Amino acid sequence: MPPHLEEAYRAMLARFVAIPSVGAEGRGQSEMAHALVLELEALGLDTHAHETEGAPVIFAERRVHGAPSVLFYNHYDVQPADPLDLWESDPFTLTERDGSLYGRGASDDKGQLVSRIIALRWLRERHGDLPFGVVFVVEGEEEIGSPNMVRYVEERREQLAADVGIWEFGGVDAHDRPLLTCGLKGIATVDLSLRTAAMDLHSANGPVVQNAAWRLASAVAGLRDEEGRVLIEGFYDRVRPPTDAERGYVEATPRDDDVFAEHVGVERFLGGATGAEYQRRLQLEPTLNVNGFHSGYGGPGMKTVLPATALAKLDFRLVPDQQPLEIVALLHEHLEREGFSDVVVNLAEEPERPARVDPDDPWLRHAADALEEAYGTPAVVIVSSGGSGPLHPFVEVLELPIAMIGVSYPGSRVHSPNEHVRLVDVHRGTYATVRLLERWAGLAPPD
Amino acid sequence: MPPHLEEAYRAMLARFVAIPSVGAEGRGQSEMAHALVLELEALGLDTHAHETEGAPVIFAERRVHGAPSVLFYNHYDVQPADPLDLWESDPFTLTERDGSLYGRGASDDKGQLVSRIIALRWLRERHGDLPFGVVFVVEGEEEIGSPNMVRYVEERREQLAADVGIWEFGGVDAHDRPLLTCGLKGIATVDLSLRTAAMDLHSANGPVVQNAAWRLASAVAGLRDEEGRVLIEGFYDRVRPPTDAERGYVEATPRDDDVFAEHVGVERFLGGATGAEYQRRLQLEPTLNVNGFHSGYGGPGMKTVLPATALAKLDFRLVPDQQPLEIVALLHEHLEREGFSDVVVNLAEEPERPARVDPDDPWLRHAADALEEAYGTPAVVIVSSGGSGPLHPFVEVLELPIAMIGVSYPGSRVHSPNEHVRLVDVHRGTYATVRLLERWAGLAPPD
Repeated sequence: MPPHLEEAYRAMLARFVAIPSVGAEGRGQSEMAHALVLELEALGLDTHAHETEGAPVIFAERRVHGAPSVLFYNHYDVQPADPLDLWESDPFTLTERDGSLYGRGASDDKGQLVSRIIALRWLRERHGDLPFGVVFVVEGEEEIGSPNMVRYVEERREQLAADVGIWEFGGVDAHDRPLLTCGLKGIATVDLSLRTAAMDLHSANGPVVQNAAWRLASAVAGLRDEEGRVLIEGFYDRVRPPTDAERGYVEATPRDDDVFAEHVGVERFLGGATGAEYQRRLQLEPTLNVNGFHSGYGGPGMKTVLPATALAKLDFRLVPDQQPLEIVALLHEHLEREGFSDVVVNLAEEPERPARVDPDDPWLRHAADALEEAYGTPAVVIVSSGGSGPLHPFVEVLELPIAMIGVSYPGSRVHSPNEHVRLVDVHRGTYATVRLLERWAGLAPPD
Repeated sequence: MPPHLEEAYRAMLARFVAIPSVGAEGRGQSEMAHALVLELEALGLDTHAHETEGAPVIFAERRVHGAPSVLFYNHYDVQPADPLDLWESDPFTLTERDGSLYGRGASDDKGQLVSRIIALRWLRERHGDLPFGVVFVVEGEEEIGSPNMVRYVEERREQLAADVGIWEFGGVDAHDRPLLTCGLKGIATVDLSLRTAAMDLHSANGPVVQNAAWRLASAVAGLRDEEGRVLIEGFYDRVRPPTDAERGYVEATPRDDDVFAEHVGVERFLGGATGAEYQRRLQLEPTLNVNGFHSGYGGPGMKTVLPATALAKLDFRLVPDQQPLEIVALLHEHLEREGFSDVVVNLAEEPERPARVDPDDPWLRHAADALEEAYGTPAVVIVSSGGSGPLHPFVEVLELPIAMIGVSYPGSRVHSPNEHVRLVDVHRGTYATVRLLERWAGLAPPD
């Protein structure tokens, strides 16, 4: 990356990071949207703020008659910065230390977004006017589960039409190998709650009054077996078997479970999984997870109370072709069948459907080649991230192949204090985007 | 009760309540012990503060050569007064409203203790010098589980020797029928804790990393069946079958489950228990109860976290002849056998052993007669309270029959804001104590 573009990257990221667009705290959203509009207009795009039921979507386009278009999906909201005392520099002042740029959103997702904009500027410097169309969809609610994205895409499917897409995240693995991710899991989050009496009671009533903590523990315990397999009838019915190609990529994923095990202090993974089986579970298995379980007294010493209420928070991570609302209905039926009709099931957030792109789509093959060229080492193809996001409408409604590549690394501390991006990743990742678009558009790199 | 004794009751209780002897907060203990010593000395007893590893035991005695002795067990510590804003008058200022005396400890246990002292004063006024011995054992740690009482009784068994005993609580049921309670359950409190990783993780790791909340829920769920029967192997082995007499008293207990069900908003008790079966469970069944269960996120909205730690707090309520430490060992073995060797079991407080007195012991028959005389209605004999206390050393080491009678009622709000005692109960309960001692000592009531 030429020095003046690195300087432009640093300056634009500094402007964006300085705006605390924390969705969960309801601040900085409109200021950030405005700053982004200015940058996209400066890039020569026709830019609009599209209203939704929540934060506006910033939409920008520059079409080229008769030529295909690339769509960039990003988001301009960030996670809260707390705990503030763990930051080594102000989270909303971009700060350079040891070759990295620190600040909330420096990676997720302002750093990724700026990399896309700088890549386009770089391409224009290499080739003059671009011979392909460009579309940006930048939402402001990704960190709260993108509750309005599905409807937005469905309502504007003509306007958003494109041929290929680049997703909001990506980067390298722990060994600096570039990652090309092809899918995201769906997610459904539910609260289970239970009340067994009008008030907490003295535990001397234990022989006669139902204990909410114990009963909800029983309900939760019956949802999974001890290796993590979900016991809800019908849960796996719609799981689409992986293709041979997908299976091949999963098996070829370089081993890193041993490094992760040591980092998180785990001696044995579920099912004793290592290597390819560990990757298969992470990429291809749907799961049920308990985010939290709370009932009764939890302080020091003892309080012999019989809790009348209990709450458990769960998330399902789903794979194609599981349907989140159908899964929640199956959970409901399972609880009824097991005698837990007193357990109340509430959907916590708008669910997201799973989606996966064919790793052998030409667009993704271009991406793999561009990554290998930029990083000097073959790309690792990840069939699906273990995480979730609003990929489904882009893949299924807009029918886009989507490449997830970017400028992050496992130590970026995304969502945590001291979030940052390494300049070396900014250089390589942005260059990979440039080369991907050149390969796709049949542009020869300049001498 | 003559007016001057009611006035003495009110004045002594006011002095005691004004001293915030809250054991859990470590305040007021020595001041309260000193005030009590003065009252017991004023009663003509030889009074000492016996040091223990915790708060001192106030011991007082007046022996009569060749005559039997009655031992009173009480405690001078109280529960914390919070939440303070729910009190209608200062918790440490005795306040009279609508025929009741309000204040922390007004019932538990300062009100009961003052009733014993006033009863002895009344007896002396009725008969001159008393023809029987009197012993007081008043501890300062009952509200934190009496951790030093067993050793205290064992080490001073000769000094404490007596023939009969009166316990620290008692009163009437919801229909103002006098209660004569003959036993207490034992108690063992344990913490179960679990760690599955060095830190909480993103829930995308659900397919490979064990979830502490889910795993502890499974461990807890396997400890009881859905009607409350404990599934730990050997748990019921030592349970002593009730005698025919005990069974008879349990079956004769007047029905009040329907009133209680409405009060606490419960439609169905465990096992569908009502009437005699409800009483059998409360009085004769040992149980396991979950006081609390805490793991992961419990706030508003969702946080898709995979919790690495979980904590459950349990209490066992035990019946004769179950041994608390043996039960904790059985719990440990059960968890090992069920594959939960990663669950750490910690004893939370010094356990208490169960104890029961023969309801047909002559001392308890005198008590039943005295109660019927004082209240004008037959006493309800409760074979065992559902609650616990340090009864075992008094029954088994000192070999005392013990009557649990007193001045409380179900609305006294013991341990809660606005704790109080009704003057009508003070009159009747204190008179019942006077009549019990007269009957036992063969003293004819004055004309």
